[in-house]
Amino acid sequence: MEQQAMRKAKIVRLNGLDIQAMTDTINALKARPNLAQFQFRAKNQWIDGGENRSTIKEFFGAGAEDQSREEAFVFTNGEPPVLLGSNEGANPVEYLLHALAGCVTTTTVLHAAARGIKLRSLSTELVGDIDLQGLLGLDESVSPGYREIRIKMDIEADCSDEELDDLLGFAQAHSPVCNTVCRPVPVVIERVSKR
Amino acid sequence: MEQQAMRKAKIVRLNGLDIQAMTDTINALKARPNLAQFQFRAKNQWIDGGENRSTIKEFFGAGAEDQSREEAFVFTNGEPPVLLGSNEGANPVEYLLHALAGCVTTTTVLHAAARGIKLRSLSTELVGDIDLQGLLGLDESVSPGYREIRIKMDIEADCSDEELDDLLGFAQAHSPVCNTVCRPVPVVIERVSKR
Repeated sequence: MEQQAMRKAKIVRLNGLDIQAMTDTINALKARPNLAQFQFRAKNQWIDGGENRSTIKEFFGAGAEDQSREEAFVFTNGEPPVLLGSNEGANPVEYLLHALAGCVTTTTVLHAAARGIKLRSLSTELVGDIDLQGLLGLDESVSPGYREIRIKMDIEADCSDEELDDLLGFAQAHSPVCNTVCRPVPVVIERVSKR
Repeated sequence: MEQQAMRKAKIVRLNGLDIQAMTDTINALKARPNLAQFQFRAKNQWIDGGENRSTIKEFFGAGAEDQSREEAFVFTNGEPPVLLGSNEGANPVEYLLHALAGCVTTTTVLHAAARGIKLRSLSTELVGDIDLQGLLGLDESVSPGYREIRIKMDIEADCSDEELDDLLGFAQAHSPVCNTVCRPVPVVIERVSKR
């Protein structure tokens, strides 16, 4: 018990991240870059109309199948009445904003820790514009995706404004979801049959 | 009561969608394309480390602020231990897969209904590859985003394989999340201070 307590006391955290574990991970990836290859996965089942449900559990990373999750995460997509649903869940384009907000935030927190910057608070507000003529195929000159997504970030940290702006620029340039949105990423759909 | 029941009985649904409401919506947007301008929103609060939480409620669309939701949807991003978290929630890149799965599914269901195709079942499995050297800034030649996302779709419907393949191609080309991923969409981050 005493040893455990001592070990626990030795963990140095910055922004909630274990700094030694972070440094160990980065050094391991520098030595063996193939450990950085991750594959994330989701399974989704259509229910009815605009309602469908994803289960997310396994992924591959750091050279192995992850075993850390005993239960799957389950998320329900829905649509509001104006989009022919009954708010069974947030809709897919809203979930995308949640993913983007989280990724920009976590990337900022991670690189702040790597730079020795202590964050006091961080919150974001996102808005994204979509012209649904694209989805409906009413005007083929309209892109069906978001036209633009704007993020207002309120962040307080123990560093100068210049260091903060440099951190935010770096986080934006290195966030996986942000780069999946702002760069073209191929999506390949294959029709299969289990029967 | 009887009148209500009669009105309800008159609703014709295909794939769970009210066909008359769908036709009315499309005709309204054809007459007034500015009704198709939607703005979706999310607010996110950092908690600690890789944990943060979004609330999603209001949006603007069909010419007005939506009033249909009494409570906000709340979603928690987390990270698995191998990424320095404790599975507080799915992580942001996994939520993106959920958003993509849902959007491709709903777009397929919608356009199947518009074509008079009745779907019997639809499920998807998604995998996406990421090289975390990008996120960590260890190799600037590596994109931090997904390299590629692959979707296997198992779909059963009362139409020919040719009609099904045409439907899937159309859905992929018109899905908002799919087009946000496969085309470049600008993300603008602005630092603000509430104080």
